[in-house]
Amino acid sequence: MEQSAAKPIRCRAAVSKAPGRPLEMEEVEVAPPRAHEVRVRIICTSLCHTDVTFWCMKDLPAMYPSILRHEAVGVVESVGEHVQEVAVGDTVVPVFLPQCGECDDCLSARSNICSVLAHRPGHMPRDGTTRFSLAASGEPVHTFLCVSSFAEYTVVDVGHVVKLAAVGPAPALPPEKACLLSCGVATGVGAAWKVAAVAAGSTVAVFGLGTVGLAVAQGSKMRGAKRIIGVDLNPDKMEIAKRLGITDFVNPNETGGKAVSEVITEMTGGGADYCFECVGSTSLMAEAFKSSRKGWGKTIILGTDAGAAPFSISSSDIKRGRSVTGGLLGGIKPKNDIPVLAQKYLDKVIDRPPAPCHCHHA
Amino acid sequence: MEQSAAKPIRCRAAVSKAPGRPLEMEEVEVAPPRAHEVRVRIICTSLCHTDVTFWCMKDLPAMYPSILRHEAVGVVESVGEHVQEVAVGDTVVPVFLPQCGECDDCLSARSNICSVLAHRPGHMPRDGTTRFSLAASGEPVHTFLCVSSFAEYTVVDVGHVVKLAAVGPAPALPPEKACLLSCGVATGVGAAWKVAAVAAGSTVAVFGLGTVGLAVAQGSKMRGAKRIIGVDLNPDKMEIAKRLGITDFVNPNETGGKAVSEVITEMTGGGADYCFECVGSTSLMAEAFKSSRKGWGKTIILGTDAGAAPFSISSSDIKRGRSVTGGLLGGIKPKNDIPVLAQKYLDKVIDRPPAPCHCHHA
Repeated sequence: MEQSAAKPIRCRAAVSKAPGRPLEMEEVEVAPPRAHEVRVRIICTSLCHTDVTFWCMKDLPAMYPSILRHEAVGVVESVGEHVQEVAVGDTVVPVFLPQCGECDDCLSARSNICSVLAHRPGHMPRDGTTRFSLAASGEPVHTFLCVSSFAEYTVVDVGHVVKLAAVGPAPALPPEKACLLSCGVATGVGAAWKVAAVAAGSTVAVFGLGTVGLAVAQGSKMRGAKRIIGVDLNPDKMEIAKRLGITDFVNPNETGGKAVSEVITEMTGGGADYCFECVGSTSLMAEAFKSSRKGWGKTIILGTDAGAAPFSISSSDIKRGRSVTGGLLGGIKPKNDIPVLAQKYLDKVIDRPPAPCHCHHA
Repeated sequence: MEQSAAKPIRCRAAVSKAPGRPLEMEEVEVAPPRAHEVRVRIICTSLCHTDVTFWCMKDLPAMYPSILRHEAVGVVESVGEHVQEVAVGDTVVPVFLPQCGECDDCLSARSNICSVLAHRPGHMPRDGTTRFSLAASGEPVHTFLCVSSFAEYTVVDVGHVVKLAAVGPAPALPPEKACLLSCGVATGVGAAWKVAAVAAGSTVAVFGLGTVGLAVAQGSKMRGAKRIIGVDLNPDKMEIAKRLGITDFVNPNETGGKAVSEVITEMTGGGADYCFECVGSTSLMAEAFKSSRKGWGKTIILGTDAGAAPFSISSSDIKRGRSVTGGLLGGIKPKNDIPVLAQKYLDKVIDRPPAPCHCHHA
């Protein structure tokens, strides 16, 4: 395996070649980082449901062949021109959401949607090319969500990396936990913290208890929520959910035919103060909205509907003081807030839900 | 005309007897106020589009016969038991939105949706009866939106009246302006002030330039908005709109086939910071949402869709930092905020758009 910054690196990667087909372990060539880019040796990568959604997707924005995954932690192997923010040897978390640091959005406290580094499906954000190719044939391999971490090495735009101070053996942040900060945990904790700004003493309902939903529970607990109702079809989720802050568990299959919104409205005497949709189902988004309290109830959309279908809300209900909002990566600004979340983990303010991950410890 | 508090009053009222049929001027009997009620001599009543919507409505919540109108100003003629808040001779604005002053919502700064005095279509909120009947036949006449101000006298729950200090000849608040504070102007100014909390220097788009839309322009100007884009199909609105704060006028018929959202996105370099829907059209609600800027754009729904159809929003767009909210009466608490708005008028901070009104000056 070549290590020179100036040269391509040959290494292994799990390549997705067709919708739903098992990934194939291939030797790939990873080109050197160009200007504003960083080549990263991946230490650990975890699985987000968005990877599965894209793995199955037949049409754009999915592209084939590609290297999936976008939750990871790694070490900078080399840097391209104009990269000052990180140096060789730094531990970084690559992240799908960019932060150029200079546009109106990056300069505003209200937005985390960078205006400069727009997502170009399958390609690097600045020049629309890719740094991957199959070693055997030279066929280009697409980048996924600007990260592509299911490889031993990847190249990421410097706007898509966050430097983390302390990753390693205890008492530092374990790599298999650090990688969750690049999407799932950041999205959930961030949503409670930045998007909803959950108030102390309030009531929260979380729809879907995967990594994001469980992290919403953690974030809500961190913000002092009094009651955190978790909704999931899988009864096995109950135990871990309660460990991570869920105080009440509702299984939609066990409501005696009542709509979940009706159950939550009864449990809370009028609806929850904050309802988080963490699945990506338009019908569940509508149900979450109906579970929100009149006067001030907020519904926060975090799931991605694979079919990009719109969801419907009643104007009459929204006029009774309700609101709907959402946030990519839980509204957090990666470079500012991921280091804060890492510290909160070290301070034991947040725990981490278990998630499948693949670590290649060096 | 009898004036005793203990007895019914016979007076004239414009009675709506069937959907869309011209109102008939009838002699009606107005029963004395019961406990927690106030009988009011109406000085002036103005026309809100909701009156027209209900005038045409075939089904519930419209009921026949009834006395329409809900924007008014009047003088307390008599009070029922347990009424301490107002006394005979006080000038009051009756208002469709109640404020009991004691429930969780009334006690919270975040809500203006009273939990105690729920709206009972056609009837008084506490006992579900009506104080009106036709003098000739004794047939009961329904109350409309707890106000029914198109009569010389009406009975209103004390939770639905706001005492106003100075209404009368200049320099006091003219009655034909005071009555607009009970719905249209309060809704528009309130929406910019309380629901959106428009930030100084921001860009606002207002869809529909009726009383509510023009009042949104006034409220946005009062909050220091830099640019206020008005959207209306009627070119005659342009002049008054510009006088009341609109800086740019967009006529959807004159965009060369472009969607209004596309025009506004181009004009603002990415979308307006605040988009107010003031018509009650679900397609316009969707268009307003699409005109809102990524990162922090807020869409505020003020119009009522007569068919109560839901409106659709894309979860992908809402996750890019946008939000949708709304507010009855612009999120204001009538008893707290209408007197403040009256003072702002006297201080010339807000002007009033012209609207059809019928004044019976005493």
